[in-house]
Amino acid sequence: MFELDVRLQQDTCWLADLPLCRVLLMNDARYPWLILVPRVADVSEVFELDESQQQQLWNETRLLAQAMQQVFAADKMNIGALGNVVRQLHMHVVVRMDGDDSWPAPVWGRGVAQPYSETEQDAVRREMLRALHASGLQVQSA
Amino acid sequence: MFELDVRLQQDTCWLADLPLCRVLLMNDARYPWLILVPRVADVSEVFELDESQQQQLWNETRLLAQAMQQVFAADKMNIGALGNVVRQLHMHVVVRMDGDDSWPAPVWGRGVAQPYSETEQDAVRREMLRALHASGLQVQSA
Repeated sequence: MFELDVRLQQDTCWLADLPLCRVLLMNDARYPWLILVPRVADVSEVFELDESQQQQLWNETRLLAQAMQQVFAADKMNIGALGNVVRQLHMHVVVRMDGDDSWPAPVWGRGVAQPYSETEQDAVRREMLRALHASGLQVQSA
Repeated sequence: MFELDVRLQQDTCWLADLPLCRVLLMNDARYPWLILVPRVADVSEVFELDESQQQQLWNETRLLAQAMQQVFAADKMNIGALGNVVRQLHMHVVVRMDGDDSWPAPVWGRGVAQPYSETEQDAVRREMLRALHASGLQVQSA
């Protein structure tokens, strides 16, 4: 049975579900940052998913990245499946801006997350939902 | 016309060509590390490839990651498309070991690359080619 990793649960809030993945908003105001978690139990590498799930994970990743790039006018999108600390398979999709807090280094393990205020989080949630709906993916967000 | 970025050229050596991507071996003995570069001109985001190229990039990435995981008995595979510095689209596929030089942090921007000796590079090339052939992908390596 799929159960969200405790660390992911602490660091994020739920945004929506796509056909395969749960979409989580990273609670870090330094970067617009989503995490896709396939709702599949006991998987930590992409190739442990079955063939159609692997294709679906990629579809959700690349369409979401494209939509985020457009909505946030990203200078660069960063996509990565690392999982050295949190073993549950998850895909990072991060909007990068020339001059952001870690630029041009990767965001992982840099500095300290800056939690959103409630107002900020409401605003970014709205923008992210706009990106999700613009992606053409089937979105369940309530 | 496809032309390999100068920085990628300096940091790697050619290993093989897959149907879409050039496969480069990162000249860093700290981690078995390949880079896939689609042989397509002027592309920096995955979603700038056409649909079939996007699918092919993913097939090459995930099959290669799986084969590397098996050949090198990786504790974790790290996969990422970042490109904040080198803008030419490229996908990192890195073998991670619990206790390696950056563990559990990502490999990018950490410390200084340790170039292979000739003997080491020959050995890792052989293992990488073994991984490539084990992947089931069509490999051109000479």
